[in-house]
Amino acid sequence: MKNFEHYKRGYYMPPVQSTDWVNKEYIDKAPAWCSVDLRDGNQALIIPMSLDEKLEFFKELVRVGFKEIEVGFPAASETEYKFCRTLIEENLIPDDVTIQVLTQAREHIIKKTFEAIQGAKNVVVHLYNSTSYAQRTQVFKKSKEEILKIATDGAKLLNDMADQYGVNHQFEYSPESFTGTEVDYALEVCNAVIDIWKPTPERKVIINLPATVEMSLPHVYASQIEYMSKNLHDRENVVLSLHPHNDRGCGVADAELGILAGADRIEGTLFGNGERTGNVDIITLAMNMFTHGVDPKLDLSDIPHLTETYERLTRMHVYERSPYTGQLVFAAFSGSHQDAIAKGMKYRENDPDGMWTVPYLPLNPEDVGRKYDGDVIRINSQSGKGGIGFLLEQKYGFNLPPKMREDLGYTVKGVSDHQHKELSPKEVLDIFQNEYVNREDTVKLVECHFKQIDGIQAELTILVNDEKKVYHGQGNGRLDAISNAIMKHFDIKFSLVTYEEHALQVGSDSQACAYVGLEVEGVNGIVWGAGIKSDIIDASAYALISALNRSNHMNK
Amino acid sequence: MKNFEHYKRGYYMPPVQSTDWVNKEYIDKAPAWCSVDLRDGNQALIIPMSLDEKLEFFKELVRVGFKEIEVGFPAASETEYKFCRTLIEENLIPDDVTIQVLTQAREHIIKKTFEAIQGAKNVVVHLYNSTSYAQRTQVFKKSKEEILKIATDGAKLLNDMADQYGVNHQFEYSPESFTGTEVDYALEVCNAVIDIWKPTPERKVIINLPATVEMSLPHVYASQIEYMSKNLHDRENVVLSLHPHNDRGCGVADAELGILAGADRIEGTLFGNGERTGNVDIITLAMNMFTHGVDPKLDLSDIPHLTETYERLTRMHVYERSPYTGQLVFAAFSGSHQDAIAKGMKYRENDPDGMWTVPYLPLNPEDVGRKYDGDVIRINSQSGKGGIGFLLEQKYGFNLPPKMREDLGYTVKGVSDHQHKELSPKEVLDIFQNEYVNREDTVKLVECHFKQIDGIQAELTILVNDEKKVYHGQGNGRLDAISNAIMKHFDIKFSLVTYEEHALQVGSDSQACAYVGLEVEGVNGIVWGAGIKSDIIDASAYALISALNRSNHMNK
Repeated sequence: MKNFEHYKRGYYMPPVQSTDWVNKEYIDKAPAWCSVDLRDGNQALIIPMSLDEKLEFFKELVRVGFKEIEVGFPAASETEYKFCRTLIEENLIPDDVTIQVLTQAREHIIKKTFEAIQGAKNVVVHLYNSTSYAQRTQVFKKSKEEILKIATDGAKLLNDMADQYGVNHQFEYSPESFTGTEVDYALEVCNAVIDIWKPTPERKVIINLPATVEMSLPHVYASQIEYMSKNLHDRENVVLSLHPHNDRGCGVADAELGILAGADRIEGTLFGNGERTGNVDIITLAMNMFTHGVDPKLDLSDIPHLTETYERLTRMHVYERSPYTGQLVFAAFSGSHQDAIAKGMKYRENDPDGMWTVPYLPLNPEDVGRKYDGDVIRINSQSGKGGIGFLLEQKYGFNLPPKMREDLGYTVKGVSDHQHKELSPKEVLDIFQNEYVNREDTVKLVECHFKQIDGIQAELTILVNDEKKVYHGQGNGRLDAISNAIMKHFDIKFSLVTYEEHALQVGSDSQACAYVGLEVEGVNGIVWGAGIKSDIIDASAYALISALNRSNHMNK
Repeated sequence: MKNFEHYKRGYYMPPVQSTDWVNKEYIDKAPAWCSVDLRDGNQALIIPMSLDEKLEFFKELVRVGFKEIEVGFPAASETEYKFCRTLIEENLIPDDVTIQVLTQAREHIIKKTFEAIQGAKNVVVHLYNSTSYAQRTQVFKKSKEEILKIATDGAKLLNDMADQYGVNHQFEYSPESFTGTEVDYALEVCNAVIDIWKPTPERKVIINLPATVEMSLPHVYASQIEYMSKNLHDRENVVLSLHPHNDRGCGVADAELGILAGADRIEGTLFGNGERTGNVDIITLAMNMFTHGVDPKLDLSDIPHLTETYERLTRMHVYERSPYTGQLVFAAFSGSHQDAIAKGMKYRENDPDGMWTVPYLPLNPEDVGRKYDGDVIRINSQSGKGGIGFLLEQKYGFNLPPKMREDLGYTVKGVSDHQHKELSPKEVLDIFQNEYVNREDTVKLVECHFKQIDGIQAELTILVNDEKKVYHGQGNGRLDAISNAIMKHFDIKFSLVTYEEHALQVGSDSQACAYVGLEVEGVNGIVWGAGIKSDIIDASAYALISALNRSNHMNK
């Protein structure tokens, strides 16, 4: 592939090795979450949200539990200004929620930003300017000193404006394009800003280190963060925030390793919406903690609702394989996976409140409002007995004998392969019922009477090719007596190898379902049949007759 | 969010700290790539590929440059068996490509697998069994010793079968569900298999460590890999392979940090297709190397073609924000990003073959077959002068004066905001032409003659409200003379503050485009007009008249 030699690594290593974070194993406490859906997310939409759509999205973010929400760049557009004013003037911001507004470090923009937030209870004013080598040389054509001065002039103006307006503000500074900035220079700029803002324990300063464009492997970003964390002024009064993008597909890793490296706060979006490859997906981060047993401090228990709202308002589509949220992420089509899940679920019945350990399912779908039915076990030509049996049991209450599951499995896979499509649970049920249950093709059971004399005597009334016949048989059990009656009159030899029966919990009037497996002379393998009747004896008789009908040996 | 306390970390730390990898900065050499699209990818599709579809996909993988391709699990289904046989019997496997077949460690499956590969030139036989604690206890209900024996019995049978069939084989072993396996136990099993297979420099053994389900942070996986790498028997004759899935959104990070930790080979898929959240996306991995200046040893120079083929054959959709491949990943809607990209592209004109350093574009879209037009600069209500100006210049050859770009920017954003939609480049062009170019609403230019006497004398024939008038004016230049003629006869005062003109490269007959900016008494800001004519004098006269028409002050 040509042109790779036209690229170079555009990031900078921290001046001293900063890899203490690698000795931490996992994240044991949720960071502060800041949603940038309404700003970074919105600005990356083909059709940005309208005012009403933004208002609905804002409410959804509050419902999920975000306490900090970046609501826009009010000085950049009339729509964003108006949205900010509407939130404030219509009292739509709960007392425990802080809105955040973004502003470039330019005088008239800062001034307009303060106009936009008048009357807000709690506000983060988020100041930024680009500091990367590429932006300094190509876009601003300014020296390091000049770029530093943009930041410090902006920081001073924020101090002045806050004094003047008297809002309950907190300040945030981002050296935008941090990942393309020399780390020691980024530190110099951030520290200059911190020195101007003079944070206190009551009014901490947020220093946000964006991977505006993701440029390095995630462990390099983490090391940059650790270096910054160790060298920021007034560190105890600084909230260290990250804002990762996903250009190299490692936004989640950046955030997670960055938290280990010292970050206290994450800016991201739901479903990873945002510029280009998106911002870091806060749902994935939160659920990663959840599945490690850590409270994520967000309520993601109804992902289907969140997905519907998000897709409707952003006109984006949640990717089918998006962790925890995609349509296919709980799906198991393959036989061995389905089998392991079915066994894992069975195992779990012993301790339904125990730790979640089902193979191939890192999360119980029900914990995020998803269902097994339709989400987990999905049936196509790759599927196997385990999944199909599990599905019939979970959804319809049929608990087939293991060997019969295998037989049904081949039948169902064959149908899917032939029709070249996925089968719904109902279609699988139909295959089971049509193929195995209460079969009457050749021989039809009309009546059956039993007497308890020398074991059991059976009197069997059946229709064979529409002709009514009465047969008698004797055995040490009812099925045995029926079998003997049939073998006496038909040219067939068989023995019963499996018999199981259970009540069906489904439907208003409880019924019994019986499963019969026969070894039939001249037939390879076991021939299976099932019977469903309100009486348990009838059910087993029908199961036997079904199996016989399926054997293709009843044409005497 | 309830139930987080029902989860625990289900992975195991390596017995000794193994974090040397953290001192490596980046990946300096492409690993061996193995595509599992036709196996792990295919088995996760709602509708698995047909034989013909698989054949086309196989050819595409070969075209991209894969040298190892897992073609299926031939003992698991008739379709996969037939596919494998078709590849071999129809000589569809190039000599430098090795097919790989997956088999469980079960005797009849191994035997059927060897039947499937008869006659193949180069084959990797990939043996696996599940080793995780969860699978041992819940699915297999076997001890560590019994599970180890499944692996070693399988390994021995592979030796026997290979002797018997005499194919040019290589062996691969996967402790499936490695990420849920105690690391020292996984090592014990792998070493037992290696000892049976006795690798040589000529016939190395592949040991593949799947993140069947991603369970830990990526640095933990990397440390597990490093521990394994340091302690595998016959390490120099072992190819250490990774097979990451993406359940925690860190599949790419797992692979990358795993390579730093010692892995030589990656199993993954195009676009990250595969079970649940997918396998690791090999395109992202390869392009991550590419953008660091490292040859990825795959040809991804035509992503649009690859996307079309993939979407058609798998019936999946490439996510809009998928790194390097999604529809939106090069897109810049926001004004500041567009402005920086436009300036970066301008800067690049000085050194078009230099290193790629354009802000907000980690990759030159043309290097993967994407276009600027329509992919990069996209216009909606968030867009700005930089992007709109860049688009008009790149696509249509109009190089507007900077201040006029700003004016046009507001006009275009207003249209997008009002219509609540993205605008195509053609729509932006239409707005420019309708609003600024050759305007004749009130005053229409009919003829214009110049004489060079005491500077320039202009004789202007114009239509005002359908009435033909002839005016004369004098000035020190042609535009000046026209201006004076107009000011003499209309109740308007203006001065020319900007004038630019250039030839238009677009179209068969070259034309000139002139831009005029006027300060008009009683009007705020500059009034802009443009003229396009084959003659450069005509073009500038039309630009002036356009601006005057736009000023709304020509109604004398």
